[in-house]
Amino acid sequence: MAVSLPPLTLILGGQRSGKSALAEKMIEDTVAAGTCGGAIYLATAEPVASAGDPEMAARIDVHRARRGAHWRTVEEPLDVLPVIVENARPDCPVLVDCLTLWLSNVIAAGRDPDAAVEDLAAGLTGAPGPVVLVSNEVGLGVIPANAMARAFADAAGRANQRLARAAIRVLFTAAGLPLILKDTST
Amino acid sequence: MAVSLPPLTLILGGQRSGKSALAEKMIEDTVAAGTCGGAIYLATAEPVASAGDPEMAARIDVHRARRGAHWRTVEEPLDVLPVIVENARPDCPVLVDCLTLWLSNVIAAGRDPDAAVEDLAAGLTGAPGPVVLVSNEVGLGVIPANAMARAFADAAGRANQRLARAAIRVLFTAAGLPLILKDTST
Amino acid sequence: MAVSLPPLTLILGGQRSGKSALAEKMIEDTVAAGTCGGAIYLATAEPVASAGDPEMAARIDVHRARRGAHWRTVEEPLDVLPVIVENARPDCPVLVDCLTLWLSNVIAAGRDPDAAVEDLAAGLTGAPGPVVLVSNEVGLGVIPANAMARAFADAAGRANQRLARAAIRVLFTAAGLPLILKDTST
Repeated sequence: MAVSLPPLTLILGGQRSGKSALAEKMIEDTVAAGTCGGAIYLATAEPVASAGDPEMAARIDVHRARRGAHWRTVEEPLDVLPVIVENARPDCPVLVDCLTLWLSNVIAAGRDPDAAVEDLAAGLTGAPGPVVLVSNEVGLGVIPANAMARAFADAAGRANQRLARAAIRVLFTAAGLPLILKDTST
Repeated sequence: MAVSLPPLTLILGGQRSGKSALAEKMIEDTVAAGTCGGAIYLATAEPVASAGDPEMAARIDVHRARRGAHWRTVEEPLDVLPVIVENARPDCPVLVDCLTLWLSNVIAAGRDPDAAVEDLAAGLTGAPGPVVLVSNEVGLGVIPANAMARAFADAAGRANQRLARAAIRVLFTAAGLPLILKDTST
Repeated sequence: MAVSLPPLTLILGGQRSGKSALAEKMIEDTVAAGTCGGAIYLATAEPVASAGDPEMAARIDVHRARRGAHWRTVEEPLDVLPVIVENARPDCPVLVDCLTLWLSNVIAAGRDPDAAVEDLAAGLTGAPGPVVLVSNEVGLGVIPANAMARAFADAAGRANQRLARAAIRVLFTAAGLPLILKDTST
């Protein structure tokens, strides 16, 4: 039985909430039923950054080991939209993991985060295949005393709102289990 | 088609989760259908405090610019109940934005937060028009190492529980989208 | 009217979200209808640790005062599974409050948290009566800059995912109100 993906899905969740595994499962259910040579795993973690950080490198290894053979990994820390447009096909979904790391790369590169999110959200409307975005929810703890952390939580929250408007389906994940925030696919 | 507001609504959400915009939209849908000369926006941010804090001042400006002409703004950092009772009318709702900032003002003024919350919750039952409270959920991150932050998260959590008991409708917001926690209006 | 508990319930929620009170209420509704001489309250807070920490001691007192006479309290900071197996009976549920504190005790004792969680989840399947686990959701704030806090949030998130897989019913609590994440009891 084929599970069909809407054009754009946003999966929100906290640190270690099972959101990536949920996204992978959703896509694997689709790909197994189709003819795609391999769904695209678009990893936004900077290889250079993770090379210098054993904890981050270990996380990436765990993610990679969990993904089966029917995945092709593409690494792109910044310009994700061209990669999505180039690779997505109706039977070949793209998983972007994760938006929050991408957003911090955008800020670190000196670009305007809100403009980058707007470009991404607008561009995703014309993607040639289903896209699943994984994003962290980071605004539900005590408001950070650190101004930079606070500004980042604000930017991440605005990004989630903008992409949720563009998405057909939005899920909130806790303990690996989804709650449906939005579904206009039916 | 008029959307009707229950006597008391509580909208919970994280930092930059879209909870204020959701509250404003809910009220604007009601006010447009009625005869109210302007819904009340009860801002709990201290003008003095925000004058000294450009980041907070900018946030307030963004909020103010978003609100349309059919709003009247009242600023009250501490004694919100008399303002609510004085201004609310059946066709004229009051939006209190936000409870969490009010609670930190209460604590900064040396008042007992639990007693203040109890007085507010009890008094809201007799409000002469619909009230919508916006409040931050701050307890879903790592437990703060700082004792004051921990005590504040405790006080904020108790406040949300108490006001949720009083409310007819309680929503949890993420990425601008609501989940219904409680609705006894139907 | 008797409310029946499934074999394993997991109640997630933030700091001061009302999750313990919800768990106690669920169990009291069951016990009142049965013949149990007292449901088991399995407290994972270390008496020694709390003796040295007036804030923690005060929290424990508040919890204890809220629980009625039909509770028997057992304190066990580490080896919770034998206590559960020994005490649970079909008409005598066990409440474990809380998993997150237990996990930090496990780590402080130099044990492997993932292995301990696996043993607990596997062992709970054979518990001789209903078990309700209360656990903190700690991963929804800004990712901690502190590596130990980050590692703890990771371990806690993995624990919640593993126990959610084992549980028949999983609830997410905010402001004292539950959202159903999973329910395979019906």
